Amino acid sequence: MIKPFDDTYFMRKALQEAEIAFEKGEIPVGAVIVVDDRVIARGHNLTEMLNDVTAHAEMQAITAAANFLGGKYLKNCTMYVTLEPCQMCAGALYWSQISKVVYGARDLERGFITMKTQLHPKTKVEGGVLAEEAGELLKRFFVTKRNLN
Amino acid sequence: MIKPFDDTYFMRKALQEAEIAFEKGEIPVGAVIVVDDRVIARGHNLTEMLNDVTAHAEMQAITAAANFLGGKYLKNCTMYVTLEPCQMCAGALYWSQISKVVYGARDLERGFITMKTQLHPKTKVEGGVLAEEAGELLKRFFVTKRNLN
Repeated sequence: MIKPFDDTYFMRKALQEAEIAFEKGEIPVGAVIVVDDRVIARGHNLTEMLNDVTAHAEMQAITAAANFLGGKYLKNCTMYVTLEPCQMCAGALYWSQISKVVYGARDLERGFITMKTQLHPKTKVEGGVLAEEAGELLKRFFVTKRNLN
Repeated sequence: MIKPFDDTYFMRKALQEAEIAFEKGEIPVGAVIVVDDRVIARGHNLTEMLNDVTAHAEMQAITAAANFLGGKYLKNCTMYVTLEPCQMCAGALYWSQISKVVYGARDLERGFITMKTQLHPKTKVEGGVLAEEAGELLKRFFVTKRNLN
């Protein structure tokens, strides 16, 4: 059976968000939150524009999804995020009790797996979806930035 | 030498924020951020009112302080918070590179010490300032809530 709305489909939506961040000069990370094959929230990194270390893509998507749902718990929701979440974002996902987190590229230095941040026991995790695209975008950002300085 | 603006003085300011949260029916946690003996940002837990798991006292204080300073890094800043920060808030403090975190009561279950969340290497930590007052306020909140249900 053809399943058009698969993990790759939604990760592409998260990558589109990451590209918007790139265009704004932000470290290109994007996230979407999905319920029943529908995107209910989007977010991209805005830490530079907002001068705010808490303005990661995931944090904004969590706030937007809760606002859409009218409740703070994200049960039955899946987050697609282009880069493995950090301690802060994994900590927020813990409180949200989200059903599933799908990430693209690993962050071996500051990602929640290396940092041993706990997600909620109910949260499933899957990694590596469109990891290459997500990683390439990040690399392109840092190369461009280095050449500008 | 008498030092009127000591840790107890600023923790009382954080406790005032926690009391505001209590009055709003929120789990009573409060935080302030201080530079050169001046409070530059305040925050209290608003997770219920905002329907948002990210609306912890610390997160709001971090955002407010960065807004006040016009920069996202909180170097030379001290956060006073009535309860030991969770993974999410400690993760945000990590990114902020804040100079010092002073907390009141320990959170043995979900606090960053038990959860092994990393703060920035430059961040000093001190605990137990007005811990009893902070803990009493939390206990009073949960007793009141239980009696209402």
